Amino acid sequence: MEILKERILKEGKVRNGDVLKVGTFLNHQIDIKLLEEIGKEFKKRFSDCDITKILTIESSGIAIACMAAQSFGVPVVFAKKNTTKNLDGGVYSSQIYSFTHGKTYNVVVSKEILLADDKVLIIDDFLANGKAVQGLANIVEKSGASLVGAGIVIEKSFEPGGKEVRGKGIRVESLAKISAMSPDGKIEFED
Amino acid sequence: MEILKERILKEGKVRNGDVLKVGTFLNHQIDIKLLEEIGKEFKKRFSDCDITKILTIESSGIAIACMAAQSFGVPVVFAKKNTTKNLDGGVYSSQIYSFTHGKTYNVVVSKEILLADDKVLIIDDFLANGKAVQGLANIVEKSGASLVGAGIVIEKSFEPGGKEVRGKGIRVESLAKISAMSPDGKIEFED
Repeated sequence: MEILKERILKEGKVRNGDVLKVGTFLNHQIDIKLLEEIGKEFKKRFSDCDITKILTIESSGIAIACMAAQSFGVPVVFAKKNTTKNLDGGVYSSQIYSFTHGKTYNVVVSKEILLADDKVLIIDDFLANGKAVQGLANIVEKSGASLVGAGIVIEKSFEPGGKEVRGKGIRVESLAKISAMSPDGKIEFED
Repeated sequence: MEILKERILKEGKVRNGDVLKVGTFLNHQIDIKLLEEIGKEFKKRFSDCDITKILTIESSGIAIACMAAQSFGVPVVFAKKNTTKNLDGGVYSSQIYSFTHGKTYNVVVSKEILLADDKVLIIDDFLANGKAVQGLANIVEKSGASLVGAGIVIEKSFEPGGKEVRGKGIRVESLAKISAMSPDGKIEFED
């Protein structure tokens, strides 16, 4: 997706060699117009699929999932990282290790909103180690729903997650695939 | 806002007397169509204001803020509850106590995305004790930006937050004001 790649090159900042900051437009400040285009692109890529629900994980995935959900005309469900007193009744849960935060989260989705006849598209901002997508896929499996695939805004294809997730038979569509980042700030895309 | 009140009456569940669960449409599963209407309603109520940025706090505010941002044609900024290695450089921060989670969060916004000439509308899902709105208002103040007001989806007007926030001169527009909730599940609205 060209406008996305251009934006990454223009505003993305490489930190510590492997961290890409895109907080000016994707996951801290959100450029709604760009996300509308991202949502349309996901719809185009999964146009052959009958999707009934978009599943993401708090917090960075929510805005992207919402704009995708507009294109698909379906609701969003976002998995919560902690059980709070606002989530009672049964939940589907999975353990997800976050490399960004250096800890394992218990991620939950209420049973009443993920149903066995749902056809689910996972949406997230980044795919690097693939733990979030695999944890969400695990929740979809527990619910008995069908997993259609995963739509990712930025895949770091030099990290192992993409290969691992695809190796499990999950269809992954990434709008920008970064093949290399260097400490001096250079970003290279696949193709 | 009638369709919102009807939805609260239909799907909202009262827990422990003072917790209102609306996870089937507002803050766990998200009904995008309803949120589009909510976004338009905020635009109508703040139509006299020149707004350049919507500010919210992760996670439940993000979806609502995004749909409001579409109506206003401006970007969203969501305050983060923890500093991660993805946020470097200077930040504006504020301490916010969450009654839901029973702890205090350090909430931050990067200085590069909240500017002195911004005119900011705060958006959140709930107003109860008012700590989140006041913490976000504090961040706006630190940035030198102007605070236009706060748009709230559900205000628990039997809690002290609304009075406290308005008492500080902040304009608050709440789309549904709940005046009472009873342990047997009864919900009453103002007017």
